[in-house]
Amino acid sequence: MPAQARYTYLGPEGTFSEAALQTLPEAATGELVPSASVTAALDAVRSGDAAGALVPIENSVEGAVTTTLDELATGSPLMIYREVLLPISFALLVRPGTTLEDVKTVTGHPVAQAQVRRWLAANLPHAEWESAASNAEGARLVRDGRFDCAFAGEFAGRLYGLEALVTDINDAADATTRFVLVGRPGRIAAPTRADKTSAVAWLTENHPGALLELLQEWAVRGVNLMRIESRPTGEGLGQYCFSLDAEGHASDRRVGEALMGLYRICPKVRFLGSYPRADGVAASVRAQVSDREFAAAADWLSRCLDGRGDEREP
Amino acid sequence: MPAQARYTYLGPEGTFSEAALQTLPEAATGELVPSASVTAALDAVRSGDAAGALVPIENSVEGAVTTTLDELATGSPLMIYREVLLPISFALLVRPGTTLEDVKTVTGHPVAQAQVRRWLAANLPHAEWESAASNAEGARLVRDGRFDCAFAGEFAGRLYGLEALVTDINDAADATTRFVLVGRPGRIAAPTRADKTSAVAWLTENHPGALLELLQEWAVRGVNLMRIESRPTGEGLGQYCFSLDAEGHASDRRVGEALMGLYRICPKVRFLGSYPRADGVAASVRAQVSDREFAAAADWLSRCLDGRGDEREP
Amino acid sequence: MPAQARYTYLGPEGTFSEAALQTLPEAATGELVPSASVTAALDAVRSGDAAGALVPIENSVEGAVTTTLDELATGSPLMIYREVLLPISFALLVRPGTTLEDVKTVTGHPVAQAQVRRWLAANLPHAEWESAASNAEGARLVRDGRFDCAFAGEFAGRLYGLEALVTDINDAADATTRFVLVGRPGRIAAPTRADKTSAVAWLTENHPGALLELLQEWAVRGVNLMRIESRPTGEGLGQYCFSLDAEGHASDRRVGEALMGLYRICPKVRFLGSYPRADGVAASVRAQVSDREFAAAADWLSRCLDGRGDEREP
Amino acid sequence: MPAQARYTYLGPEGTFSEAALQTLPEAATGELVPSASVTAALDAVRSGDAAGALVPIENSVEGAVTTTLDELATGSPLMIYREVLLPISFALLVRPGTTLEDVKTVTGHPVAQAQVRRWLAANLPHAEWESAASNAEGARLVRDGRFDCAFAGEFAGRLYGLEALVTDINDAADATTRFVLVGRPGRIAAPTRADKTSAVAWLTENHPGALLELLQEWAVRGVNLMRIESRPTGEGLGQYCFSLDAEGHASDRRVGEALMGLYRICPKVRFLGSYPRADGVAASVRAQVSDREFAAAADWLSRCLDGRGDEREP
Repeated sequence: MPAQARYTYLGPEGTFSEAALQTLPEAATGELVPSASVTAALDAVRSGDAAGALVPIENSVEGAVTTTLDELATGSPLMIYREVLLPISFALLVRPGTTLEDVKTVTGHPVAQAQVRRWLAANLPHAEWESAASNAEGARLVRDGRFDCAFAGEFAGRLYGLEALVTDINDAADATTRFVLVGRPGRIAAPTRADKTSAVAWLTENHPGALLELLQEWAVRGVNLMRIESRPTGEGLGQYCFSLDAEGHASDRRVGEALMGLYRICPKVRFLGSYPRADGVAASVRAQVSDREFAAAADWLSRCLDGRGDEREP
Repeated sequence: MPAQARYTYLGPEGTFSEAALQTLPEAATGELVPSASVTAALDAVRSGDAAGALVPIENSVEGAVTTTLDELATGSPLMIYREVLLPISFALLVRPGTTLEDVKTVTGHPVAQAQVRRWLAANLPHAEWESAASNAEGARLVRDGRFDCAFAGEFAGRLYGLEALVTDINDAADATTRFVLVGRPGRIAAPTRADKTSAVAWLTENHPGALLELLQEWAVRGVNLMRIESRPTGEGLGQYCFSLDAEGHASDRRVGEALMGLYRICPKVRFLGSYPRADGVAASVRAQVSDREFAAAADWLSRCLDGRGDEREP
Repeated sequence: MPAQARYTYLGPEGTFSEAALQTLPEAATGELVPSASVTAALDAVRSGDAAGALVPIENSVEGAVTTTLDELATGSPLMIYREVLLPISFALLVRPGTTLEDVKTVTGHPVAQAQVRRWLAANLPHAEWESAASNAEGARLVRDGRFDCAFAGEFAGRLYGLEALVTDINDAADATTRFVLVGRPGRIAAPTRADKTSAVAWLTENHPGALLELLQEWAVRGVNLMRIESRPTGEGLGQYCFSLDAEGHASDRRVGEALMGLYRICPKVRFLGSYPRADGVAASVRAQVSDREFAAAADWLSRCLDGRGDEREP
Repeated sequence: MPAQARYTYLGPEGTFSEAALQTLPEAATGELVPSASVTAALDAVRSGDAAGALVPIENSVEGAVTTTLDELATGSPLMIYREVLLPISFALLVRPGTTLEDVKTVTGHPVAQAQVRRWLAANLPHAEWESAASNAEGARLVRDGRFDCAFAGEFAGRLYGLEALVTDINDAADATTRFVLVGRPGRIAAPTRADKTSAVAWLTENHPGALLELLQEWAVRGVNLMRIESRPTGEGLGQYCFSLDAEGHASDRRVGEALMGLYRICPKVRFLGSYPRADGVAASVRAQVSDREFAAAADWLSRCLDGRGDEREP
């Protein structure tokens, strides 16, 4: 993606989405602007107002961000160019000088509340909770004196002149949110050996084995599926499409062949891109389905057709 | 479920959940009380305060109600005893005498807003929207004069003395929400030939083919899966469990055998009950996997072991 | 295959193999010579003494001709260029003037005996049977006066000056033998829409699911397998390879992709050719796996990689 | 099987079949009589003339003994009670005093010839071969002076007063023949933890995926198939049944459930018995499909139906 471009994120300033975007090289030179919602962020990309949008897609505690999945599955096509994994832990932000004993009122986004409930019960059992529209907005309200403290990312403290009284708060150890950088369709990045490919596949209605067939297109080519989510198509209960992430890059032969299989068996399929895995873990590829082996098989088939039909031996 | 018992629903009064509960015979003689959230409703059942709770589980437009799925998958076990399908269409509720031209402000639950957005743009393009905590709460605010009109179920009008200025509003034709009546574990209802069985299955970590195996346990016994949803286990990105509905009753041999297969291959599985399908559609069962055929096969195997090893012929 | 060449067949003259070869256009202009055994016929091809050999490969009553399968699976590679289906019915050949009442002794190949046993019991219950080395040899012995009658193909009568006293004798209605015309590897014939592809695949030792995987390579591409035979590899009990015929031509995309799949998963695979089906039945190809659909899928994938990532819609 | 009974084997005396029968305890006290053919041996069992018949079923070099497979698949039902594995190596039997230099003529069964061809070419390149009806018959002909030497089992020498000039002759190292002891249907033997189960299954005509389904019935229950052979049904080319051996005993839950699956999906299935494996190798059973796990799953299901719906946890 262009370096000097405008990028948007799920705002306001101080959200985890902004923090995630800051980890990308695009953030160093681009202009970063918040959007009010996932839909607004992706609309900015579709309309050309932004080169890319950084939005959450999945959380290890809450699950899929369905708005993001549905926006990617419908409307004019978009593609994923990068992913970011951000450990989600909260800081308890206060105005300088406030102590735990001083705290009577707490705020934050409802999702934050769900993730710190046990910590609150143990450490601030008598504090009164009121929800804010976002964690960043909660921090602003603390700065303005409306509440004594707010749960937010530690980075939001600096933005609003607050101190982190406690850090690394999260009832679930290792809570992580996965974000994706979405742009208009363009040439996909070169493979890095540690890539992920995303797509949405619709199933043939009323075909009970359709999901099994979809999985077999991947399994027979030895491609691991890392995530699969059903989403309603909006055409009535029991009608689903599947959003999925596979290990590998669309230019890997095994992945490309599986995608073509999906194209053939599904009434509709949408390619969402291939991009480097944020965890940098190289795909585990059985020797039998490596690109090298695909190329050897193609050579062999072409020799067979030509009557130089040697057999394969180890 | 007991007739003279207390039943709770996702409140407040006037919600679609209440309307769904009203369709059940239990509602005629039981005491019906609203709960503030799905979690509160199910906690009331767990603690014994209520015999059953009626909560939404799936919507044809918005997808799974993840709180319901996650509550059923964790905590002390609960079971589903009935399901209700409710067409979701909104009425525009106003104080008597109000006309469309009078409307300056509109309210309703954010989910309602998502389902009437196109209608609003076409019919009330200049009205200002402000969200309410529930559709029923929106109706109350209209009664109290805070807003000019509210989107809610038509039945909510009677409750708050409002008129339905327009009815059957929903951008998506045939929008439907599926609700379930949940109770503490008990003997499951007798099969009706049109039943559904629900369960949650955890997969073996890091086993790429695990979902495929799970589906094959059903496929090999000819059981259709009607819904399958992945949900995070909370133990890190990439760790999922699957919530599923299958056609048929756990006492059907094909369904029971598939459930036992899940029990064997999954590190953890939770049975959520068998209950009559709200649509009354009888399961399509291939002759090969009917109870009669399972019984014939068991007889045959037992004859084989006894040395009366006749062969099967048509 | 060349028209002016030498062709051999499983002899001696007057066998069903010769009759099968006579049905091919190659027979009209080529030189036809008998071989003493399947092995000798194929060795003549391997050494260049013959351009092709016509040998039986399968019989609807007796099953596979294992010598043919094993010869094709081992030694220097050969390819199948044509197949011939011959209804196998026997004539009772006698010296002119002989009647059924005159018959005291009968001869023929043991395989013939197996196929006319019930006819013999019903029509010549008291005749004494003695086996001959081939049906044609039996006819010669009748001509020479050693036996009163012989079972053989009706065409063998002309060769030895015998009359067919009874024709169309076979206990099994519709008994058929399938023959193949085998040559040294060469460019395979163009597809005719009614083709068959043959191969031999070795399985990974000690991999219990290996046969299932082999079948799935075909199933996932919608290719029907018409025949699959296990044969010992000679490396100990429990070590098998599989000889198989698939519907379609190796240049059909679905067949080629399945063959390449075999190449990748099998430690050894041998292509045996694609050739017109003798029954002329066009392959039943689901629209999803037609060449046209494979080409459309490849176009789509290449557009995806280029960022012209349109989705497929019907 | 009864100890004082009459047992028959594929004769004449001195065959490998007799040697195989001698290894069984039944041979110690029973009366052993040769039969002229596999069919004759099995007919003796069917008619009650013999309690059991010992016949070859499979050879590591030649493959299936199709007569045995077909006889077991048709006619009145029979069952397999034991199997014997016999290493097949030949002795060169001569009249006492004969040396290799003296040998001008050699005899033996054609199958023996196939297995010693390379040895002959290297050691007796100029000897003239003539086939005998069986190896034992060849030995008799040597005793009578018709030939200089015969290939047969070493044990046949004692029977005919011959010496083994050379032993352990076989071109294929580890050539083995598998024999089965067949009787009329009776109660199957108790499991020994190292058992094998045999059956014949017919497939639904014209159902391309039928073989895949048959294999999946075994795979989904984690049962290894050790042998699978297609055989024509006699009803036309392309119509097959499958003879198969599976690891385990029909009273093992995983094996029984798979057999019942076959019963349901196949138009016809014939159980051929469960019996101790001759190699004594215990079945490799994944913990998930052990009898213990099947019992635990059945308990769990029954608790679920009763509303004691606990979940499984490790």
